[in-house]
Order: sequence, then structure tokens, then C-alpha cells
Amino acid sequence: MAAIDAAGEFETIRTLLAPLADPDHALGLMDDVAVLPSRPGYDLVLTKDAIVEGVHFLPDDTLDTVAQKLLRVNLSDLAAKGAEPFGYLLACHWSPRCGWPERALFVAGLARDQDTFGIRLLGGDTVSTPGPASFSATLLGWTAKGRLTSRAGARPGHAVYVTGAIGDGWLGLQAARGRLTLEPERLEALAEHYRRPTPRLAFGQAVQGLATAGLDVSDGLVADLGHLAAASGVGMDIQLELTPLSAAAHVWFGNRPDPQAAIADLASGGDDYEIAFTVHPQDEAAVRREADRLHLRLTRIGEVVRGSGVSLRYLGEPVTMRAGGWTHD
Amino acid sequence: MAAIDAAGEFETIRTLLAPLADPDHALGLMDDVAVLPSRPGYDLVLTKDAIVEGVHFLPDDTLDTVAQKLLRVNLSDLAAKGAEPFGYLLACHWSPRCGWPERALFVAGLARDQDTFGIRLLGGDTVSTPGPASFSATLLGWTAKGRLTSRAGARPGHAVYVTGAIGDGWLGLQAARGRLTLEPERLEALAEHYRRPTPRLAFGQAVQGLATAGLDVSDGLVADLGHLAAASGVGMDIQLELTPLSAAAHVWFGNRPDPQAAIADLASGGDDYEIAFTVHPQDEAAVRREADRLHLRLTRIGEVVRGSGVSLRYLGEPVTMRAGGWTHD
Repeated sequence: MAAIDAAGEFETIRTLLAPLADPDHALGLMDDVAVLPSRPGYDLVLTKDAIVEGVHFLPDDTLDTVAQKLLRVNLSDLAAKGAEPFGYLLACHWSPRCGWPERALFVAGLARDQDTFGIRLLGGDTVSTPGPASFSATLLGWTAKGRLTSRAGARPGHAVYVTGAIGDGWLGLQAARGRLTLEPERLEALAEHYRRPTPRLAFGQAVQGLATAGLDVSDGLVADLGHLAAASGVGMDIQLELTPLSAAAHVWFGNRPDPQAAIADLASGGDDYEIAFTVHPQDEAAVRREADRLHLRLTRIGEVVRGSGVSLRYLGEPVTMRAGGWTHD
Repeated sequence: MAAIDAAGEFETIRTLLAPLADPDHALGLMDDVAVLPSRPGYDLVLTKDAIVEGVHFLPDDTLDTVAQKLLRVNLSDLAAKGAEPFGYLLACHWSPRCGWPERALFVAGLARDQDTFGIRLLGGDTVSTPGPASFSATLLGWTAKGRLTSRAGARPGHAVYVTGAIGDGWLGLQAARGRLTLEPERLEALAEHYRRPTPRLAFGQAVQGLATAGLDVSDGLVADLGHLAAASGVGMDIQLELTPLSAAAHVWFGNRPDPQAAIADLASGGDDYEIAFTVHPQDEAAVRREADRLHLRLTRIGEVVRGSGVSLRYLGEPVTMRAGGWTHD
């Protein structure tokens, strides 16, 4: 918990961060800039997300997992677009609790995920704030020219799919806060999903060109499908009973008195970091093959229709979200 | 001062920030990413700096000038490298004082500097924090392939130059805090320099290929020259009495009891955002011509020597920095 002065910021860069630097483009973090040569035939894809202590991560989360979450929520954006990540710039706004050991732990988390995802540090800044810690990362990736999976290509008749399971991010936050009653190993699996989500990079790249529109599920499945529908100028009919659940979420769900409200909670909770996308019927077999090849669960949850907005049904019955929660029609 | 909830973050993006977006590459801020086509023959230059309320700007600075400072400290990094800026990604960590009018003011400051410097918003994130506000920007610029002004090319015999005036950032911070006694118009000029420094973009581009090493003066002239010397593996001899001062700094300096200590304070204060660089003697006339053409003050303050570190003299007498301040040898 030692306070770190301006000299400490230099030392943080020199000792902790410089070993993570990209040897070709980061100038050893000894300059103020990174340099990236042109890559003919490719587009550069950029995304920047920020996370704040007490908002996007918990004050008692250890900083290695915070660093990993920072990278992964940004990698998830690249994944949904089909981009191949290669590097990042980082801004650390350290709070007073971020002494040297905490900073070293943060950097250890970065190092681990650099290896896992094949990315390198390109540059950034490290500053101190008297408030809660916050961090942002600008992730860079490559995609073949003009091939980015957009949000705007969904058309009536296309199928709506989602990878993995939905609701574990929301349940995981409650588990991490000790507000959920389940077997300890279930709680741990859920909290782990909240702290260290898995960006679906390989799948996102595999279905680039097959997905007609796609994004990562960060705000909640229903809200994010709404973003896709709005950008594409279409509506979506979603069957909530098809929402894919993890084993832990199934146990939780089985104990709910109102299954319709429970599934709606899972489908609006956020922090899932799965990919939701649409696909032309003729390509459904191909995206299923890609999911099989990658041993990734893939679920068809509805279809694109004319109109606007996301229409939800649970076992045939319409469900409407109103201010203050979910209700039956 | 109204609190802004998650819906307000969307509205901030949709209403305030979307009009600033790059029409070609930002996807209307409606996607999670920006896309940048390859530009053959050019390198992409990236830099990311963060600023924190109470550390890098004052709690009573209005948010339009905070936005401008954020862009300008990053633009200054590109300027020193000779890069031509074209766009940025932004992370806003709003504090509780950042209600809708404050956010609109911040965005007005961004809009003004987008016009001034010819840049566009590419993407980013907006989040709320219970602590002090902080912001980061990732600035992107282009430079002709392989032409970046590095820190590593200074060689013994090269001359050391600095643009503009030194010390106004440090004096300006004191002026903005009401801790300086000078004529009101002098105080205002200094505070303005602290709040809205001028990145030397045109000059940095003009001397790319002439400057053998360069960087922007953000940590303080002496410290930053030390960075250049270390990266180049050389020493520097600096004559402190040559340090260029503004009219306001001259008045302040004239009232100091110890001129040597006063000039050392100005040369170590930081926040100047001028360009310090080295140049081969055969190119000195050319860099002077570029400065004349741009009506920019340019001062030769010393030369590169064998060895390491920055040796300071004031009217021939050695000056040494020790922990706790400046002293005579």
C-alpha cells in the first residue's frame, strides 16, 4: 500500500512494463509513441474500453485478474468482428491501494494474457489518482481488407445465434459478491466467468464472411441484439427458452419460482462476452461446423424479421421489458 | 451535477459524441470498433496519455479546456515525432460532477480542437467513477515510412534546440492556482498556457529528417533532455542562461533573489509542450529557416557531447540538481 510518486511511475514503466513491450513496434516504451508499418491487404481494427473499480470490477478482485479482464473485454470486441489481435496501448490510473506489489500483480496478469492471446504491449501511460483505480486499453487487430463483421448486415430470414452460455456474467457478479447460494464449486465457476471471461477469438475469425452481423454480448443479450437490429434496420424474434445456460445457471434457474422472469434476468444481465450474430440460412451448416471444430457450444435462439426492435417469447408467450423489470404481456 | 446512469452513457455517445465521429472509419460510433485501411508508404504512429483531475488539471478548470488539454498533450507527442495527426480514441471516466452540461462542455472543447488540428473521433468508451474525473486519449497519426523522429539519433557535436518558451507550464499552474503575484494579463497568459498548450505540429513535421533526435517537453526540459541523452547514449552540455523565457516569465524571473535557482526551476517544471531536439551542425541553418517560416521562436541551448547525462551551467558556473532541489556545485 506504499504511495508511489512520479519517479515510481517511471520505474513502473521501466521495470514492470518494458519487458511486456512489442520488440518491433513499441520502441522499448522508451519513446512517447509506437510505430506500426503499413500492412497492405489488411485493415487495422481498433477498440478502446475502460474499467473502473467498484463499477466493472470489485474492490477485492486481485489486480492480476483485473488486468486480464481489461484485456479480455477489449479482445472480445475484436473477436466479434473477426479481427486477429496483435497489440495494445494501456492507461493505468492507479489508486492509493496500488503499491508496488499490486502493480507487479497487475503486470503478471497482463503477461499471462499476452501469452494466451499472442499480443504485445505497444505503449500508453501510467498515472496516479486519489480515487478508485481505473484502467483502459486500446486493442489493435488486423482483418483482411473489407472483411470486418459489421452490425448492419442482418436481413429478414437470417437466423440469430449465440456462442457459449448466457447469464454467467450476471450470476458471476452476484457470486463474487457473496450474494448467491449454490454449491461452492458452482459459485467459483460463475465468479471466475465474471472475473476472466473468454473472448471467442477463433470462432469470430472462423465465421467472418459467414456472419451477416455480429457483436459481443457485453450489455446483456437482449440489449445487444437490439443494437444489431437497430444498426441493420430489422426486427428480431427471440425464443427465450432457447437461451443457452451453463450447468451452474441451470441449477440456479431450477430454483426460481418464476422461470420466465428468471430467464429474462439472465438474458439481460450483461458481462457474458459471447458472440451474438446473424447468418443466412444457407450458411447455418457452415457456422455449425466451425463451432463443432472449435468445440464451442452454439445455439440458434431466433430469427431476423421485418420491423424493428427485439420481440421476446417464452414458450410461445410474449414477454415485455418495462422500466423496473420484466413483465408478462 | 445530475448523476448519469448507464442509459446516460449511451445517450452521451449518441447525442454528444457521435457528431464528432470520423465519417469514414468510426462506423458512426455505432459499432465497438473503428476500422482503418492500410496506407502504403506510411507508418501509423500511436500515443496514449491520460490526465487526472487534481493531478494534471485543476478541479475548477472548465471541462472544455480539459478536453483540449487532453488532445493537445497527446498531439504534442505526435508533433515531436513529425507525425501528421488524423484521429483519436477516447476514454472518459466521468466523476459525479460531470452531469449533462459538463459533458456537453467537454465535447464542445473536443469539437473546437478537432477543427483546429484536423482530427476526428474514432471510438472509445465512456464510464462513470465515484472518484475524480480522468480521461485518456489514443492519438493516431501518419508519418512517411521509416521517417519518424526518434530519441536515439543524437551524436556528439550536434546542437540542442528548443522551440517556444520554457517555464510557462510551471508558472501557469501556479497562476491558475492563484499562487503567483503578477499583472492580471500576465497571470492569464500563463494560466492559459497551462490549460491549453500549443502542440508544435507544423514545426515537428517540417524538421522531420533534420532533427537527429527529438521529444516534447512534458516532464521538464532538463528531465526530457536526459531522456534524449540516455536513448542516444550521449551527454549534453546545456547553458541555462540561454533558456528561452516568455515576457511573463521574464517579469517573474526579474523579481527572483537567486536567478540561478529561478532558471533551474523553470527548466525543470514541466508541462511546456515545446519540442526539444538535436540537429547536425550542417542542418542548423535549415531548421532555423523552418522556424522563421512558421514564425516560431527557436533557441540553441547547448550541444551534444560524449559521455552521459545532462550537464548544466549558468553563466559558466556548474549547476547540479540534488534530491530536494537545485544547488550550486
